Amino acid sequence: MERQDKDLAWMLQYDNIAWYENGEVRILDRRIYPIEVKFVVCKSHQEVAQAITDMVTQSAGPYVAAAMGMALAAYECRGQKAAAQLEHLRQAAYTISHARPTTTKRMQGVVSGCLDAAKAALDAGKADASLDVRDCAIEQNDRRYYRIGQVAKYLVEKFPSHGTIMTQCFAETIVGQMLKEASLQGKELKLFCPETRPYFQGSRLTATVCHDMGYDVTVITDNMPAAVMKNEGVDVFTSAADVICGDGHVVNKVGTYQIAIAAKYHGIPYYATGAPDFGHETIDTVKIEFRDPDFVLQAMGTPTANQNVKGYYPAFDITPPELVTGVATDQGMFSPFELNKYKPIEGEITV
Amino acid sequence: MERQDKDLAWMLQYDNIAWYENGEVRILDRRIYPIEVKFVVCKSHQEVAQAITDMVTQSAGPYVAAAMGMALAAYECRGQKAAAQLEHLRQAAYTISHARPTTTKRMQGVVSGCLDAAKAALDAGKADASLDVRDCAIEQNDRRYYRIGQVAKYLVEKFPSHGTIMTQCFAETIVGQMLKEASLQGKELKLFCPETRPYFQGSRLTATVCHDMGYDVTVITDNMPAAVMKNEGVDVFTSAADVICGDGHVVNKVGTYQIAIAAKYHGIPYYATGAPDFGHETIDTVKIEFRDPDFVLQAMGTPTANQNVKGYYPAFDITPPELVTGVATDQGMFSPFELNKYKPIEGEITV
Repeated sequence: MERQDKDLAWMLQYDNIAWYENGEVRILDRRIYPIEVKFVVCKSHQEVAQAITDMVTQSAGPYVAAAMGMALAAYECRGQKAAAQLEHLRQAAYTISHARPTTTKRMQGVVSGCLDAAKAALDAGKADASLDVRDCAIEQNDRRYYRIGQVAKYLVEKFPSHGTIMTQCFAETIVGQMLKEASLQGKELKLFCPETRPYFQGSRLTATVCHDMGYDVTVITDNMPAAVMKNEGVDVFTSAADVICGDGHVVNKVGTYQIAIAAKYHGIPYYATGAPDFGHETIDTVKIEFRDPDFVLQAMGTPTANQNVKGYYPAFDITPPELVTGVATDQGMFSPFELNKYKPIEGEITV
Repeated sequence: MERQDKDLAWMLQYDNIAWYENGEVRILDRRIYPIEVKFVVCKSHQEVAQAITDMVTQSAGPYVAAAMGMALAAYECRGQKAAAQLEHLRQAAYTISHARPTTTKRMQGVVSGCLDAAKAALDAGKADASLDVRDCAIEQNDRRYYRIGQVAKYLVEKFPSHGTIMTQCFAETIVGQMLKEASLQGKELKLFCPETRPYFQGSRLTATVCHDMGYDVTVITDNMPAAVMKNEGVDVFTSAADVICGDGHVVNKVGTYQIAIAAKYHGIPYYATGAPDFGHETIDTVKIEFRDPDFVLQAMGTPTANQNVKGYYPAFDITPPELVTGVATDQGMFSPFELNKYKPIEGEITV
């Protein structure tokens, strides 16, 4: 890994997601992290797509993995005629971007940037575009970091100087940037992280990031947010979003809706972070992903129910704009009812 | 076990909690049931109290275990002078009833009934009151069954003929009686059971009872109730209660409050079941039990978080009367604001 600048060092510590090198993509297995630190090694772009489907990485992870998967796809067809390489890359772009239905539109932005980079490399007469595609992946990620830093700035401005913040699910980069920004703004935060069943992203990932960055962090089970709001005086509930529709509906990890209802009941503001997705002007075009229902009948691999009962597993839920106090974007804080004032930037990921 | 009548057979199938025999109390270990069926064997009343503290049994379980523990206490002092036996039993009653702070008042009702039975046996010249105390335990339980059957009747009257019901935590006898009553009233029910972290009582126990009684039951994680209400059309949310205060506050397993807020938001009625506890005229006298915070940092014994982060574990939460549509009691359905119309019966347990 050549790049050693400060931002990348921070990324490698908190966001170590996926990396292409020498014909393989290594993806940190966040299904088991931090209990174990293991990597899934993908030898083909199809394996990368499968890893995304299998939730090896989450939150912003799939976008980085997707771009690194495109670098691998470029490696797979290296030396072929330019037209054949581009055809192979187009097919790979389709496969990778469709690995998870909820994120397909954003994925298409990512892989199309990679396709452009590959095309430019091939036009310049290179036989192997893989490193150019990886550079594109890094550049996309750097832009993402800068923009999420801006999101964090507008979010943290809403926090009191001594505040208690509740998170939901992993939220990845924004959690790191939020805490970095809180230090910059001199704000002292105490965090409550619901564990986020069935994958425990909150307890495993969010809480680890908060702890590693030196913050006071408490893990709670997913049935406790309302009780914590009542007992402990939560100032702000915040989450990232898988999709923020143009009409202000927020699609995020299942549980967000329930916490947002509890926040409203307690008069606590809920700020979603990210950028409106103008691929989804309204909630009607969002297809909610249902995952293997048996997965809710276990915890960390141990059965939790009689194996004859059924499970139910919507990966996401939908929070309507009336429960969203504001959407913190890189362009400022917006009312969920005025997202049309946000100026979209083509193909950018802000999670 | 001598009694083989129909009600007891039903109890042994669904409510197999605790039994005194030959100087020991066997308690079904509901922390691991139904994944494994094991019993904790207590050789002294102190061990029974410890098992109650350790959550070996839950819901109505501790009351049955407490009464059986009193039978064991009577066995411990058999053959001594009556006054010495009564003194031993009084001390045992204190130890057992204080095993968990939230339920002490109800426990005192249970153990004082047992004390009376022991006194009657000793007055009649018996040297060993243990079987009389056990008979008292059985009689208390039979009365409980009858009265909970009445509670179920008033609850099920509120269900539609084809209904979707959401439960919370185990709720024990009332779940069995509710389903029995639904069959009697010819109502078809589909059930959603939140898993109830961190002990998984909902997935392990409630769902098993529902399944074994032939009902369509689906387990969900604790972050899904609001999403299920929105997506699946829940008709009624119902839970038992550890304490129903005279002022209509309902103290129950943590999570109940959050689901009640979500139910209100969706216009879904929430019926608590049980009887007002006139040991608690208002919520101000209820002490909420906080349990070992590390317990929320594991699931079925497997760590779920970096071991440097903190946990937080209030065993119960408080649902205010404005979120409670009605309290189903053995005397009918009451508004939470009119519980003074309920006629208390000394020392009865209605969970």
